[in-house]
Amino acid sequence: MTDTTAHRSLTLLGLGDMGTALARTWLAAGHSPTVWNRTPAKAGALAAEGAYVAATAADAVAANTLVVVCLLDDASVGAALDGIDLTGKDLVNLTTGTPGEARARAAWAAERGARYLDGGIMATPTMIGVPEAGGYVFYSGSRALFDSSRALLEVPTGSRFVGEDPGHAALHDVALLSAMWGMFAGISQAYALTEGEDIAPKDLAPLLSEWLGAMGFFVGNAAERLTSRDFTSGVVSNLAMQVAGSGTMLRTAEEQGVSAELITPYVDLLHRRLAADPAAHGGEDTTGAILLLKR
Amino acid sequence: MTDTTAHRSLTLLGLGDMGTALARTWLAAGHSPTVWNRTPAKAGALAAEGAYVAATAADAVAANTLVVVCLLDDASVGAALDGIDLTGKDLVNLTTGTPGEARARAAWAAERGARYLDGGIMATPTMIGVPEAGGYVFYSGSRALFDSSRALLEVPTGSRFVGEDPGHAALHDVALLSAMWGMFAGISQAYALTEGEDIAPKDLAPLLSEWLGAMGFFVGNAAERLTSRDFTSGVVSNLAMQVAGSGTMLRTAEEQGVSAELITPYVDLLHRRLAADPAAHGGEDTTGAILLLKR
Repeated sequence: MTDTTAHRSLTLLGLGDMGTALARTWLAAGHSPTVWNRTPAKAGALAAEGAYVAATAADAVAANTLVVVCLLDDASVGAALDGIDLTGKDLVNLTTGTPGEARARAAWAAERGARYLDGGIMATPTMIGVPEAGGYVFYSGSRALFDSSRALLEVPTGSRFVGEDPGHAALHDVALLSAMWGMFAGISQAYALTEGEDIAPKDLAPLLSEWLGAMGFFVGNAAERLTSRDFTSGVVSNLAMQVAGSGTMLRTAEEQGVSAELITPYVDLLHRRLAADPAAHGGEDTTGAILLLKR
Repeated sequence: MTDTTAHRSLTLLGLGDMGTALARTWLAAGHSPTVWNRTPAKAGALAAEGAYVAATAADAVAANTLVVVCLLDDASVGAALDGIDLTGKDLVNLTTGTPGEARARAAWAAERGARYLDGGIMATPTMIGVPEAGGYVFYSGSRALFDSSRALLEVPTGSRFVGEDPGHAALHDVALLSAMWGMFAGISQAYALTEGEDIAPKDLAPLLSEWLGAMGFFVGNAAERLTSRDFTSGVVSNLAMQVAGSGTMLRTAEEQGVSAELITPYVDLLHRRLAADPAAHGGEDTTGAILLLKR
């Protein structure tokens, strides 16, 4: 049986590092993408590798039903597609942006008669086409478009569909990156504290990795508590103890001549949660403090 | 051959949650610790389990050569041991404190003729006596004292000796806790961003865990770069790109009605590192920013 809905080829708008990496994996897999870039120089090498190079974005969009966009930002997407007929097109937008931008772009595409799928790329260009690197793209928006383009989209890297709300791919992307930056900030503080001491970074590293791995239980634990809204059952180290202990962390930074700027905001957040109602919150774990972040 | 240097029993000062948990594991293993607490009520249950309860700290210290101290803070240690003869004693201080407090307490012990070992407990009271919980204590100070007391000290939980500098146990403790709080802050931001959306915390949790596990490569990578001072070779996502992308993270928080207070300080640190010399630092990874934390 022939699947008449699946896409066979595609157009790619944007040949930055990521777009170029995507184009190369499609070329290597035997596809012949039509590519376009605002400045044409970057398309030259890809033409030699078998890509069709379109002179204008309109020509590129006209060449295929499936149009993958990987530009600098959402404003670049609007500028590149301005005035181009998108009727019947399948737009897959891998451009980095906010959930709000993705939702607005989905509405914009619908008005122009196109199906819309938004993507948040959880990979660097060097991870594209390297399955063992573990990269993937969060997709959200049209499930039908995801299903019909999935085989082609998964040539460069893996995929995770996270719902019909077109903003949810970007939201997952930003949520994971925010968590990563918090972890990087904490790791940075750990190394800064031991700088200039007779403690080799390579000796601290395995201890840090093991500890952060063990403390990763917080991810699942917080998920359960946020769902049940039970912040007190089975708490092993409660908020009152954590707040009391935070002084040692701050005084150690001061002693070591290290700024506490990366640690202070979380300490302050825990203090505020405790101070709001010491009797009610003192026995909680630290998950309840998350509620203070939402305005 | 009989080992005449190893300790056979010990005194424990301090019966808070942690001290009580320690005493119970020694009792369960067939030892008969002598215990003391400032307020005597807590010693009652332990007496029934076989502990010798001393009426005064001086009596407790006189009962054994090995004296383990687990009090509220360093000031409590000074107060409890004030005026007591410590000549020939082996002091193991598990009281939470800063590296500076540990170093001063080690000098104080040396003046009084005692050997000194400092400990930073990487466990909660519920993890004591539960080997599979993976807790342990960082020790630093007298290596000879660590060796002669190790068998007894490892009854409640594991041990890691991290050097002769008596401040290094506390420094390792605080470094790991700081890293953990950074990670907790990042995880908190991720959940706050998705609060109120149709994204269940239990669905986000495995994605977060997997991502943080993969991004844990930063620990080892940063250790190598801090040692070599090479912040640019093999960079997969450079500082210029990270700083450019940080806007999406902050604008998403704004859109979602979530405070960016936990994320902003690290964003600012990366901005400062880049702004200091864009040509030199733009191609770095984020490790170089650690140097800005040290004053």
